[in-house]
Amino acid sequence: MDDAVQMALLFDYYGGLLTERQRQCFELRYNQDLSLGEIAGELGVSRQGVYDNLTRAEALLRNMEEQTGCVRRDLAHRRALQKIRLAAQALADSASPDVAEKAREILRVLDEYKE
Amino acid sequence: MDDAVQMALLFDYYGGLLTERQRQCFELRYNQDLSLGEIAGELGVSRQGVYDNLTRAEALLRNMEEQTGCVRRDLAHRRALQKIRLAAQALADSASPDVAEKAREILRVLDEYKE
Repeated sequence: MDDAVQMALLFDYYGGLLTERQRQCFELRYNQDLSLGEIAGELGVSRQGVYDNLTRAEALLRNMEEQTGCVRRDLAHRRALQKIRLAAQALADSASPDVAEKAREILRVLDEYKE
Repeated sequence: MDDAVQMALLFDYYGGLLTERQRQCFELRYNQDLSLGEIAGELGVSRQGVYDNLTRAEALLRNMEEQTGCVRRDLAHRRALQKIRLAAQALADSASPDVAEKAREILRVLDEYKE
């Protein structure tokens, strides 16, 4: 998993624990892909200030993941659901209406399940 | 969900963020079901000290959940997996070997998926 994807997942879970300023820097950096200098201009703060905020934010997110493992568990969930989806899709094409209906039931659960 | 079950789930996710003493009090209270007085005797601290440690621990766990929602998301995962299990179990009894095998594949994913 590349760094930006991992950071986005960490932010999704633990972003609420950041300060408002850390959150702003983080979003401009990772969602809008701005450089440190561009973020500094955008927020009217020094480049060093942006760097410090990002460094602290990333450390906090990584530390939270180390302590709780929420993202790791979430990824394991998603991998399991993906395997189930493939098997259910194969069954949904069954000639037996009962089998196809049960398989579609599984696919509906997967679709309703958004997080 | 009753309070003890909820506390156990919160502890599973966020227990790593507690101090060693908070963790001890928490485990004696919720895993071994000791009274405040019994925990105080066990650890050689005052009953008030136990109370304070537990109160702070519970507040931290609840606050972490409010900020990140890991337990809420985990419970939604589990409910989805349980629905899928019921549908897959129905299919695993199919007279068609292909259908039964695919259904068992889904059940294997569910069984391997422990968290």
